[in-house]
Amino acid sequence: MATKNPLIISDKDKMRQWSRSMRAQGKTIGLVPTMGYLHEGHLSLIRDAHKHSQSVVVSIYVNPGQFSPTEDLSTYPSDFLGDIDKLKSIPGGVDVVFHPHNLYDYGDNSNDRSCWNDSGDQHGGEREGREVVSCVEDGGMGHETWVRVEKLEKPLCGKSRPVCFRGVATIVTKLFNIVEPDVAFFGKKDYQQWRIIQRMVRDLDFGIKVIGSDLVREPDGLAMSSRNVRLSPAERDKALSISRSLTEAKAAAENGQVNCRELMNSVIRSVQGAGGLIDYAEVVDQESLEAVEEIKGPAVFCVAAWFGKVRLIDNMEISP
Amino acid sequence: MATKNPLIISDKDKMRQWSRSMRAQGKTIGLVPTMGYLHEGHLSLIRDAHKHSQSVVVSIYVNPGQFSPTEDLSTYPSDFLGDIDKLKSIPGGVDVVFHPHNLYDYGDNSNDRSCWNDSGDQHGGEREGREVVSCVEDGGMGHETWVRVEKLEKPLCGKSRPVCFRGVATIVTKLFNIVEPDVAFFGKKDYQQWRIIQRMVRDLDFGIKVIGSDLVREPDGLAMSSRNVRLSPAERDKALSISRSLTEAKAAAENGQVNCRELMNSVIRSVQGAGGLIDYAEVVDQESLEAVEEIKGPAVFCVAAWFGKVRLIDNMEISP
Repeated sequence: MATKNPLIISDKDKMRQWSRSMRAQGKTIGLVPTMGYLHEGHLSLIRDAHKHSQSVVVSIYVNPGQFSPTEDLSTYPSDFLGDIDKLKSIPGGVDVVFHPHNLYDYGDNSNDRSCWNDSGDQHGGEREGREVVSCVEDGGMGHETWVRVEKLEKPLCGKSRPVCFRGVATIVTKLFNIVEPDVAFFGKKDYQQWRIIQRMVRDLDFGIKVIGSDLVREPDGLAMSSRNVRLSPAERDKALSISRSLTEAKAAAENGQVNCRELMNSVIRSVQGAGGLIDYAEVVDQESLEAVEEIKGPAVFCVAAWFGKVRLIDNMEISP
Repeated sequence: MATKNPLIISDKDKMRQWSRSMRAQGKTIGLVPTMGYLHEGHLSLIRDAHKHSQSVVVSIYVNPGQFSPTEDLSTYPSDFLGDIDKLKSIPGGVDVVFHPHNLYDYGDNSNDRSCWNDSGDQHGGEREGREVVSCVEDGGMGHETWVRVEKLEKPLCGKSRPVCFRGVATIVTKLFNIVEPDVAFFGKKDYQQWRIIQRMVRDLDFGIKVIGSDLVREPDGLAMSSRNVRLSPAERDKALSISRSLTEAKAAAENGQVNCRELMNSVIRSVQGAGGLIDYAEVVDQESLEAVEEIKGPAVFCVAAWFGKVRLIDNMEISP
């Protein structure tokens, strides 16, 4: 089968020019934002993009704005050439890979920490904004504008990763403004992220349709993630306890067990029994992400757990 | 002279369609965001828009997101038909008046306070986000996404009006996403707002050029503002102390008086002597808006003061 070489663009203005030239030709643009190290989950998003848009842009950018200085930004896996090979292998390929160097460098000497350092707020105002610090602030970049989805960013991953969703909402806004797509694709593996982006698009009136694509699993059930490569074979085996116990909990719920505390206690016991460290295990409403006590409407089981140095997340929707 | 009737659009999707049809014809779009009750300051922005773009959209929308529940949203002056007459009188007129009803109504029953009420944060997380409450939250609208320009929003007006610039940055983002302009025009009367929008456009990578238009004064020196109509004749006369003392301070600085505390003390004495209540009177850096002690580079004198029930702001730039 003939393969298609994507155009690789790293410059913001060139990216926007390309998109505007497509729009001028009447072609719709689908955007699949990624942090690279692509796996079958990403490729399924791209296949969805081909169904919904006439041209496809994949962005590959590891966003420092969604990592705190203590998180795994420096060890996040990458393989750009391998990614390009995978993209070529997809039927239809992709039109553009947008691969910027640093989306927080504005080329105006703003990377200067002198006016805002660790000693505090020079304006003497509230400090609440400073409690949240990402690698962008830590790196002394002059960027200071953040998009906050104030309710949905708080539960689940938001509790242990307070900068994460502020960083996600902000980088997706930047990518939307640079690529100007008609449709954008997000995996439901990152369930909270998907819901946050949907809400942000509604609240900020982006002229963009957001599509959530189903979570993709390995044959043994492990939810696909770029971070899986960092699991040892033994850890990987133990991590199967997450998907296995979620499948059991979902089956129990479908058989009439609606008490969420009991359902999740069995998940927690199973993951801890395999040596995992639970970050959270909750049943939440599919829209509001608020904890539910009894399954009455569309809900989602959500789990985050550590195996060794790797934090994994997984989820399963249930619609009784 | 022939007058031009603007097209009046209230629907978001129709507004975006109009803009996209203009872009498809190769025409650039200039946006002048206003809260209505137009005066000569607004009209000068529209004249600037004609210089920089081939079509002109004026938005008229009093944004509840930038008012706290204790501020003057309910008494903010409006005169839609008078505004349209003024717009017709400008050479070239305007192409569209975008006049939405409620930009926070998403038509999905989200205007429901039940899941987030005054008793606190249901997720049990930090409360810092809830210290800032605008008429949008107070009105029980389901909107929860806010754009924060974290440093520039804090000084000057940000101290006494903590929701103001969060609301401004958010509504301008919404208007940018609905109107999709090439150029947007802001008055330097609202100096901090103009700098915040510039920074936001840079940090969020909007493909939009921001142009700041000079402050326009009445013949007697009073900075034009829609709120001036709420001053009694006596208050209006006393309020001239702001522009008069700023003019004197600027002249003193140009004559070698560089000590900002002394310069602003004379402004404060003058405004207080006329019966005004000072909110702030500061000399700040033109870019960072940080207070400066001595005038060494481009700076701006900024004043906010109350006369009766009306809060007025004014400023003068100085570039030694």
